[in-house]
Amino acid sequence: MDIQIGRGKTARRAYGIDEIALVPGNRTLDPALAETTWEIGGIRREIPIIASAMDGVVDVRMAVRLSQLGALGVLNLEGIQTRYADPDPVLDRIASVSKEEFVTLMQELYAEPIKPELIEKRIHEIKSQGAIAAVSATPAGAIQYGSAVAKAGADLFFVQATVVSTAHLSPESVDPLDLGKFCQDMPVPVILGNCVTYEVALNLMKAGASGVLVGIGPGAACTSRGVLGIGVPQATAVADCAAAREDFHRETGRYVPVIADGGLITGGDICKCIASGADGVMIGSPFARAAEAPGRGYHWGMATPSPVLPRGTRIRVGTTGTLEEILRGPARLDDGTHNLLGALKTSMGTLGAKNLREMQQVEVAIAPSLLTEGKVYQKAQQLGMGK
Amino acid sequence: MDIQIGRGKTARRAYGIDEIALVPGNRTLDPALAETTWEIGGIRREIPIIASAMDGVVDVRMAVRLSQLGALGVLNLEGIQTRYADPDPVLDRIASVSKEEFVTLMQELYAEPIKPELIEKRIHEIKSQGAIAAVSATPAGAIQYGSAVAKAGADLFFVQATVVSTAHLSPESVDPLDLGKFCQDMPVPVILGNCVTYEVALNLMKAGASGVLVGIGPGAACTSRGVLGIGVPQATAVADCAAAREDFHRETGRYVPVIADGGLITGGDICKCIASGADGVMIGSPFARAAEAPGRGYHWGMATPSPVLPRGTRIRVGTTGTLEEILRGPARLDDGTHNLLGALKTSMGTLGAKNLREMQQVEVAIAPSLLTEGKVYQKAQQLGMGK
Amino acid sequence: MDIQIGRGKTARRAYGIDEIALVPGNRTLDPALAETTWEIGGIRREIPIIASAMDGVVDVRMAVRLSQLGALGVLNLEGIQTRYADPDPVLDRIASVSKEEFVTLMQELYAEPIKPELIEKRIHEIKSQGAIAAVSATPAGAIQYGSAVAKAGADLFFVQATVVSTAHLSPESVDPLDLGKFCQDMPVPVILGNCVTYEVALNLMKAGASGVLVGIGPGAACTSRGVLGIGVPQATAVADCAAAREDFHRETGRYVPVIADGGLITGGDICKCIASGADGVMIGSPFARAAEAPGRGYHWGMATPSPVLPRGTRIRVGTTGTLEEILRGPARLDDGTHNLLGALKTSMGTLGAKNLREMQQVEVAIAPSLLTEGKVYQKAQQLGMGK
Amino acid sequence: MDIQIGRGKTARRAYGIDEIALVPGNRTLDPALAETTWEIGGIRREIPIIASAMDGVVDVRMAVRLSQLGALGVLNLEGIQTRYADPDPVLDRIASVSKEEFVTLMQELYAEPIKPELIEKRIHEIKSQGAIAAVSATPAGAIQYGSAVAKAGADLFFVQATVVSTAHLSPESVDPLDLGKFCQDMPVPVILGNCVTYEVALNLMKAGASGVLVGIGPGAACTSRGVLGIGVPQATAVADCAAAREDFHRETGRYVPVIADGGLITGGDICKCIASGADGVMIGSPFARAAEAPGRGYHWGMATPSPVLPRGTRIRVGTTGTLEEILRGPARLDDGTHNLLGALKTSMGTLGAKNLREMQQVEVAIAPSLLTEGKVYQKAQQLGMGK
Repeated sequence: MDIQIGRGKTARRAYGIDEIALVPGNRTLDPALAETTWEIGGIRREIPIIASAMDGVVDVRMAVRLSQLGALGVLNLEGIQTRYADPDPVLDRIASVSKEEFVTLMQELYAEPIKPELIEKRIHEIKSQGAIAAVSATPAGAIQYGSAVAKAGADLFFVQATVVSTAHLSPESVDPLDLGKFCQDMPVPVILGNCVTYEVALNLMKAGASGVLVGIGPGAACTSRGVLGIGVPQATAVADCAAAREDFHRETGRYVPVIADGGLITGGDICKCIASGADGVMIGSPFARAAEAPGRGYHWGMATPSPVLPRGTRIRVGTTGTLEEILRGPARLDDGTHNLLGALKTSMGTLGAKNLREMQQVEVAIAPSLLTEGKVYQKAQQLGMGK
Repeated sequence: MDIQIGRGKTARRAYGIDEIALVPGNRTLDPALAETTWEIGGIRREIPIIASAMDGVVDVRMAVRLSQLGALGVLNLEGIQTRYADPDPVLDRIASVSKEEFVTLMQELYAEPIKPELIEKRIHEIKSQGAIAAVSATPAGAIQYGSAVAKAGADLFFVQATVVSTAHLSPESVDPLDLGKFCQDMPVPVILGNCVTYEVALNLMKAGASGVLVGIGPGAACTSRGVLGIGVPQATAVADCAAAREDFHRETGRYVPVIADGGLITGGDICKCIASGADGVMIGSPFARAAEAPGRGYHWGMATPSPVLPRGTRIRVGTTGTLEEILRGPARLDDGTHNLLGALKTSMGTLGAKNLREMQQVEVAIAPSLLTEGKVYQKAQQLGMGK
Repeated sequence: MDIQIGRGKTARRAYGIDEIALVPGNRTLDPALAETTWEIGGIRREIPIIASAMDGVVDVRMAVRLSQLGALGVLNLEGIQTRYADPDPVLDRIASVSKEEFVTLMQELYAEPIKPELIEKRIHEIKSQGAIAAVSATPAGAIQYGSAVAKAGADLFFVQATVVSTAHLSPESVDPLDLGKFCQDMPVPVILGNCVTYEVALNLMKAGASGVLVGIGPGAACTSRGVLGIGVPQATAVADCAAAREDFHRETGRYVPVIADGGLITGGDICKCIASGADGVMIGSPFARAAEAPGRGYHWGMATPSPVLPRGTRIRVGTTGTLEEILRGPARLDDGTHNLLGALKTSMGTLGAKNLREMQQVEVAIAPSLLTEGKVYQKAQQLGMGK
Repeated sequence: MDIQIGRGKTARRAYGIDEIALVPGNRTLDPALAETTWEIGGIRREIPIIASAMDGVVDVRMAVRLSQLGALGVLNLEGIQTRYADPDPVLDRIASVSKEEFVTLMQELYAEPIKPELIEKRIHEIKSQGAIAAVSATPAGAIQYGSAVAKAGADLFFVQATVVSTAHLSPESVDPLDLGKFCQDMPVPVILGNCVTYEVALNLMKAGASGVLVGIGPGAACTSRGVLGIGVPQATAVADCAAAREDFHRETGRYVPVIADGGLITGGDICKCIASGADGVMIGSPFARAAEAPGRGYHWGMATPSPVLPRGTRIRVGTTGTLEEILRGPARLDDGTHNLLGALKTSMGTLGAKNLREMQQVEVAIAPSLLTEGKVYQKAQQLGMGK
C-alpha cells in the first residue's frame, strides 16, 4: 500500500473529495423516503450540516435561524462576537478594507480582549430564542472560558484547533488542556477536533468526545497546506476516522459521530463526505453566501488574525440567496450551492440509501475530475476569457 | 483491482473518455470501406448518432432533418414542445435572458402543464414528413403519456431519468413505473436509461429494453456531479455495460445496443466511446450548435427547470454550421465538431475497423491529455489571454 | 501491465514527453565532447533534427539553409510549392485571413492541382545550391510522383501519412501502394511513417524503410486526437519503435533510424525523445518561428486543407529569430526554443552521454510537470492575467 | 518499483514537493518548544534557511542582514557584485529593461570580466560587519578564485553548477576541477552541488563536502527542464540524497547536511523538504521579495546570462515586506511567504517534532494538490479573471 517516494521514505496515497464520485447501485429510492436525521451530543437534528464557528458565518441571528431550519450553527467564542459588544461596525470595517489592508486590520481587531460577560450574553441570546446554543473555543480558550460556557447553559461545546492531540507538550510555564478531564468535568457535551488519523480520532473518542471533527488543510479560506505543508485529503481522512468510530462503537457501545470539516462547497461535496463515512459535515463558505450571514459577502479563516503567522485569506463569496434557499431550497442557483438538503436527499434517493448509515456504505469510484485541455478551453470561454 | 482510499473504504479507479486514446493496429483501411450502419429497436440507421431529447437540441424540424441525414433525433415530451402550442416565442425568451435570470425563468416556463394533445401533434408532425418519430419521457411521464405515445404511432420511446433502476422504492401514495411490465405492454420499442453499471444494464435488458443508455454525470450541461456527487467516468461505464450486452446476447440471443450518453463533444469522443464498447452515442451540445437547432445558440440540461433542485446550466455554444455540415460535412471547422460521420469513418479506416463491431475491439491506451504548464501557456495564448 | 478500464476492456498506460524528465548519472561531460552526428539513408548530418514537410516550415530556401547548418529540411511535394509556380502571394494570403476564413481558404487553395514539373523544379533548385534534397509525399502521391522524384535526383524520399501500415485495404477500384515493392524499386532511400507500435515499425523496416517516423496525434498543429480519438503519447511510442529497431538490427545487421515526429517544441523535448530511444527528431513549429520560414509567423497542419475533414489548425507562432539562432544559437530567448543543438549538447554533457547511442540509454524518471494551484497562479501572473 | 514506459525502457516515478503533504501524528507540541538550530561547516545557525547565490537575492547588505537574523546568505562571486565596483546602476538597468531586451542585456552585462580584487573586497565588507561570509563559484571559478576566497577569509565556500559529478570529462586542453583535492586543499569548508541521486550525493560526501546541495530543475527562475529536459522532482531527490547522508554518517561518523535547493516558495515547501529528509533549504525568490533585496522586485536565474544558451528567466516578484518580516515575522501576508521561521516552528509543533531530526521522520502522504475544475474556477475568480 505504501509507496516509496525516495530511499527510506515511504508515503501513502491519500484521496480528496474531488478525486472520488458516487456510483449508483441496483436500487433507487424516492428522495422523499431518504431519512437524513442524525444525533450529536444527544441532540437530534434533521439536517446533518453544521455551520462553522467562523466570524463571517455565524452570529446569534444565524445560529437561531440555522436551528429553526433543522441544522446547527456554532458560535466562535474567541472572535468578533465576544470581543465587541456591538459587532456590526467591526464587521462593516472588515468588509470594506482592501485586500492589502486586510491582514493588518484583522490583527488589530483581534487584539481587543475577549469579554467573558459577552460569552454568556451571546449564549443567552441564542437560548432565549428557543434555539440550540452550540459554541466553540480553542483548547486554551476552553480552559479560560469553560465555566462561563457551562454556566450560561450552552448545549454543545466545540473545542477546536487546527490540530488537536491527546498528547500535547507545552512549555513548563503553561498548563495544557487535559482533554479527558475536560470532557468529564464539563456538564456540556464536548466535540473535539480537528484530526485526520485513525489513532487520534480513537484517542479523542476515548477521551470522552461527543463528536470528532475531521479535516486539516482542505478549506477554501484556509492556507495550512501552503503555510505549514500540512494537510490530508478529506476522503481518506474521513474514512480513517470513521473506521475509528466503528471500532470504538463495537468495543464500547458508544457511537461518536464523525464530522467532516473543511473545503466542502457543494451538495455533491457533502454527499461524498458522508459516503466516505462521515455522520455530518461542518461547512463555512456556503453559509457565508447567505443574506443573513455576518460576513457581508466575505469569508475568512479562523487563523487569519494570528499576530505572528496569519493563515487563511479573505475571499469574496458574494451573497447568493437566503439561508433557507441555501439549506432547504428552492434553489436559485444550479451549481450545487443551494438547497443542500434537497441535494442530499436526491443523491440518497438516486443511490438507494434510506438513511445516513446506508449512505456511508454506497459505492465510491476514484474518478478525478482533472482538468483536460478541452475542459480548460470550455471553462475559459464560460469565464469570458479569450474573446 | 480495488484501491483502499481509507480504512474500510475501497474504490475502483474509473476512466473517462479524456483519459484514453485509440491505438492504430497492423492494418489500415480506406475510410470508404468503413461500415457504420447499426440497428436500434428494429430500425436500421447509417449513422450511430442520436440527438439528445433536450429542448435546445431537438424539435420537430430537427427530428425530421436528422432522420433524413441517416441519424436520429429524440423529441423531449416533457419540455417546451408539449407545453406550448407555439414554442418559438418561449425559445426566444430563453435565449434572451441574462445568466442570472435564467434559472428563475426556466422554473416559470416549465410550470406550464404538458398537453397530451401536443404530444400526439408533435409525433404526427414528424411522421407526416416521413421521418422516424423517436420521443422521450421520464418514468413518471411514461406512465402518464405512454398511451398517447403509442396511439400517435411513435417509432421509438426513450424512457430516461438521471438514474433508473428496476428496483425503485416509492412512497405508498405513488405507483412507480414497473419497467418490465411497461416494456411488455408498449407496442413501441422502449429504450431505457441512464445507467452506469453491469448489473443495472443487465437488469434493464432483462426487463425488455430495446436499448440501454449509459452515462451519469459527464455531460457539459449537466452538474450532477457537483450537485449530487454522483458520476461515473464514461469509458468505464460504457465498457461495463457493453459487457452486460455481450453476456445477455450470449444467453438469450437478443442483442440490445448500448448507447453512450453525455459529455461527448468531438468526433474523437464518439470514436472513443464506440471503442470502449458502445453501439451508438447520444449527443447534445454538438447539435445545439447547428443552424437548425431550436436553442438559438444556447444549450441547457434537462434537469435545469426543476422547481426545487435545478441541475444543469445554460451554455452559450454558438451556431457553427448546418446540421448537414456537422453530421456529414464538409467540415468548416477543424476542431472535431464538424463532419462527425467523416471523423468516425476516417478513424475506423486508420484503425483498420471494417464495422462497428470491429471498432469496439480496437486497442485503447490510457493516455491522459492532462494539462501541463506548457500546454496551459500555449492554450492561454491561443485564447488571446495574457498579452 | 495492462489495466482494466472496464469489464472485458484493458488498456496500457502510455507516457508522453511531458510526463518524463531526464536524470543525471554519476558522470558529466564537457558539452564540447558531446557528439551528435547521425546518419539517415546513407547521409551523415551533424544535427539530428529534421524540419517537417509542412508548408509553413519548409520551402526551397529553408531546405538549403537547414542543409548548410548541418540539419535537414523536407519539402512537401503536395503543398503550395508544387501547386503554384509562385508561392509567395499564396503564402501572403494564408497569413492574412482571419481565423474564421482560414479553413475555407485552405480548402480552396489546395484544390489547385499539383504540377509534376514543379516537383522536379523544386528538387533542382535545392540540389543546384549544393543542398540535400529531402522531399515528401503521401502514399497516394508516392505512386503518382515517385518517378518524378527519382528522375529529379532527390536524396531522400519521405512517404508519410497520419498512419501507415503494410496492410492497407482499399476499394477495388483503387490500387494501393505496396510499400515493400516501392522501397525496392525507388532509387532513392525511402523513409516511412507515421507509426506508433513495435509491430508496425518492424513491418516498415522489413519493407525496406531507410528510416521510420514515429508519432501520431501529439503535434501542436494537429488535432488527430480530438477529431479521430487516435493518438499515442510520444515517450511510449518512441520506446516501442526503438525496440523494433534494436531487434531488427540484431537480426539483419541493418540499423534503421527512428525519428520522433510531432509535438516537440523545446530543446528539452528533443533531448527527452532521444533519451526515449529516438535517433533523430522531426519538428515543425520551432522552425516556423524562424525569420526565414515561409509561414510568415504562422504554422498549420498538413491535414488542414482536407476538403471534407480538415484536421489541424493554424497557430500564430510569431517570428523569434533567425534559423541559425534557433538551430545553433546564440539564443536570444531563454525558453528552450533557441539554440537547439546547444541544448542537446549541454543536456548530453550534463547527463554524461558522449554520443546519441549513449543518450538513448540515460535514466528517465516519470515526473509529470502537472499543473498545481501554485503554478497556475504563478503562470497566470506571468501572463499578466489577474491584475 | 520501476514502470515500463515502453519496450525496453523503464522509469521510476519521482515525486515533487507539490505532490506531498505532511500528516499529523499522535503528539503535538507548543511551537516555542520546536528547536530549529542546525550546523553547516562547523557554523551553528538558528534558522535552516540559506539565501541563494543569485544576483537579485544576495549582496553584501543582504548577507549581513541574513546573518544577523540567524540565517545565511551566499554571495555569488561570478555575478554583478564582482564584475562591477559599483553594482547599483547595473541593477537599476536590469530592473528597467523590457522582457524582450532582458536576455541581450544580461549577456552584455555579464561579459564584463570578474575582478579578483572585488571578490576579496566583498568578503571583507561582510566580515567587517561581524557577519558570516558565505560565497559561491562554479567549478571553473573555484579553480580561478579559490585562493582569493581563502585569502579573504571566507567562512563557507559553495561550489555550485547545475549538475556536478566527481567524474567530469573535459577536453584535453581544459584542466577540470578535482573536487576531492579541492575540498582537501581549501582552508574553508566547501559545500558542493547540485546533485539529485544517492550515488552522486555519496560521492560528493566522500570527496570531502561539508554540505551537499540537492535539486536540479525545479526552481521558479530556472528552465532546465524545458531547455535540457533534465530535472528530478524534489521530494524524491531529497529523500534519496538524505539516505546517502545517513549511510555515510553510519560508515564514517561524519554528518554532512543535505540542503534542498530550488523551487521552494512557501513555508509549507520548506517544511515538506525537511520532512523529506533535508537538513536545510536554499531559497531564492522568497528573499528576492524583501525590501532589502538587490533585485528591486525582480528575480532571475544564474544561467540566464549564458552567452550561447541562456536558461532561466526574469520574473517580477514584487517587494512584499522587510527581510525580518519574511524570515521571522510578524507576517503581513497570509500566503505562506512571510515569517518562514514561524511557519517552520508551527508546523513542527503541529506535527510533534521537537527538532529537525524528528521533523525528517514525520509522516508524509502523497496528496497531489492538482487542479480540478472547481479550483480553477475559484482561482480564476480570485485573480479577477472572467468578469
